[in-house]
Amino acid sequence: MSPTAPNIEQLEVELGDRSYPILIGNNLINTAGSHIAPRLKGRKVIIVSDENVAPLWLPTFLKSFDELDLDVHSLTLPATETTKSFSHFERLLNDVLALEIDRKTTLVALGGGVIGDIVGFAAAVLLRGIDFIQVPTTLLSQVDSSVGGKTGINTSYGKNLVGAFHQPQLVLADTAALATLPKRELLAGYAEVVKYGLIDDFEFYEWCENNAKLLINGDQNAQRYAVLKSCQSKARIVAADERELGQRALLNLGHTFGHAFEAETGYGNKLLHGEAVSIGCINAFQLSAKLGLCEQQELIRIKKHFSQIGLRNSLSGLADESWTVERLIGHMAKDKKAEAGKITFILARGIGKSFVANDLSIDAVKDVLAQALTDAKS
Amino acid sequence: MSPTAPNIEQLEVELGDRSYPILIGNNLINTAGSHIAPRLKGRKVIIVSDENVAPLWLPTFLKSFDELDLDVHSLTLPATETTKSFSHFERLLNDVLALEIDRKTTLVALGGGVIGDIVGFAAAVLLRGIDFIQVPTTLLSQVDSSVGGKTGINTSYGKNLVGAFHQPQLVLADTAALATLPKRELLAGYAEVVKYGLIDDFEFYEWCENNAKLLINGDQNAQRYAVLKSCQSKARIVAADERELGQRALLNLGHTFGHAFEAETGYGNKLLHGEAVSIGCINAFQLSAKLGLCEQQELIRIKKHFSQIGLRNSLSGLADESWTVERLIGHMAKDKKAEAGKITFILARGIGKSFVANDLSIDAVKDVLAQALTDAKS
Repeated sequence: MSPTAPNIEQLEVELGDRSYPILIGNNLINTAGSHIAPRLKGRKVIIVSDENVAPLWLPTFLKSFDELDLDVHSLTLPATETTKSFSHFERLLNDVLALEIDRKTTLVALGGGVIGDIVGFAAAVLLRGIDFIQVPTTLLSQVDSSVGGKTGINTSYGKNLVGAFHQPQLVLADTAALATLPKRELLAGYAEVVKYGLIDDFEFYEWCENNAKLLINGDQNAQRYAVLKSCQSKARIVAADERELGQRALLNLGHTFGHAFEAETGYGNKLLHGEAVSIGCINAFQLSAKLGLCEQQELIRIKKHFSQIGLRNSLSGLADESWTVERLIGHMAKDKKAEAGKITFILARGIGKSFVANDLSIDAVKDVLAQALTDAKS
Repeated sequence: MSPTAPNIEQLEVELGDRSYPILIGNNLINTAGSHIAPRLKGRKVIIVSDENVAPLWLPTFLKSFDELDLDVHSLTLPATETTKSFSHFERLLNDVLALEIDRKTTLVALGGGVIGDIVGFAAAVLLRGIDFIQVPTTLLSQVDSSVGGKTGINTSYGKNLVGAFHQPQLVLADTAALATLPKRELLAGYAEVVKYGLIDDFEFYEWCENNAKLLINGDQNAQRYAVLKSCQSKARIVAADERELGQRALLNLGHTFGHAFEAETGYGNKLLHGEAVSIGCINAFQLSAKLGLCEQQELIRIKKHFSQIGLRNSLSGLADESWTVERLIGHMAKDKKAEAGKITFILARGIGKSFVANDLSIDAVKDVLAQALTDAKS
């Protein structure tokens, strides 16, 4: 491992012999080769990117390998909603196999969550498992999808229904890449940042309230701290429950509601994943307040924070006449985390006091959804 | 676990929290439900078979679930050479997802190695991993592919290049199923049985010499013992090296040569996998003898045994003018177990004294292949 430079944070995701480090800092892509080289089992490295990210970052990334005696290749996938499909996955596997890989070859995912998910899954199944490294270029992928080892693709039956748990060897989160993100995407990514405060860290939630604007306006220190805290939170929760049998479900705060909204909007640009999560977090606190678990004041405080920075906190302008409570509940029941018809919700006794609720009355959920739809349509 | 009845052998594959039992006996398919039920996490069971096996065994298998309060479904795949293709795999995943599975659903592979491999791989990636149970119906799959957790599909670049290590919850090896196998398939499966003797068990090799005819003629006791000893051998080797980093390579005795012959014949009916392995074992001992590692007498003894029971011990009638040493070596170098151009061979210092050789001169291999081709064409 190359020594950590100033302004580079490093944390270790503790998973026994699958442990790996995350480096977070500005301009890590410029020096990626020197961080990656010591982690390789063999000489062959295959970088997979997409058509949006490649023009911005691939040349810089490749240049960082110039002085190294490695066999570096790159592949570029389309940057569409359907990139995580079976057909793109098959093509990726074949394109990688065409490069005559062996078990010491390493794949590198350079891009957002879609690239991380499909490349990670390819690494999980090629030759029954080869190494991969994540270089997430969006805020969402830096704080969420590059920690935890979940990889996968979508099917016509739902998102991420086919995949594997496969941990990377290394994650390089370069905050410089965030400067090239559209503001809407940065904001959506922030929903997953503030989520960690809402789950179990009131102090970090307060930091978010005070620093969200700085972060969204590109302040490097605020971004590095937010990514570090988020990765630490997720790493802690994942380390305790790698295969998602219990407490890892906390990470789904806002996601069960959010999943229903994404399914209803077709997982597209109409509603970004992070936006669905921000609305979902509000709904989770509404549900908790309705059940008498948390104070109304906490809910109001979160809504206000989201509103002040321009982050979605309702279905307003999104839900039309076709949206019904029944359809939304139907989407929730089809989530792969549902079991035998039961839906697990993450509720809260306040900001930073979330917990897993397995035996929830579906009526309370319906009430919250009905109110959300009424508000949105009014 | 239901108690083991008389004439049922049970062994445990020791892999920590991935350990599982193998039951071996006559008519286990008749009572499959009672063995499987205690192993299920949920109520839903999806049995996947193929068009050859389903008419013979699916009704009996399903009937064994009659008295159980379970939600049992079945799917049947074509029984062709291309069943382990990407397109069949995608269809299988979708057909399973259409049955609205959750993480407690269990898949059951009822069939030979192809069914075990594709169903095991489906279970490995559906919802990032669900349980599966193997009910192997061929000798080859009972003694080889149902132990060790290797699953996978084929690509145009080679066999099993895409897959996962995924251990079953239970294996039921019913020797009654062997009565419905064509004799050629039974013999080919026997190649993997005698291989375990050749690797590290001289006593078992002697048992094979004395009992192979009984086994091939359908003697239940001989079959049960052969399957038990084979599974024990493989389980012992796999337990010591689950991810194939070292000693597990011993299981590839005869397979590096065999792989080249299968690639040359197109992995079809022209040369069955077990036949390729039996020729490959002879070649491995020829190579060992040529290198002065083992006595010529040992080689002659094995060839004679194979010849007496009608098991292939040469390329005779198979290799024509188009076969060349260079092409065969090329196939070997493309095997996924090859690393950076180096081929690992399993050699022997005698029957039951095999070892892994990593730094072998390719010239000796070429000599053995040249002789094998000369013999075959003469």
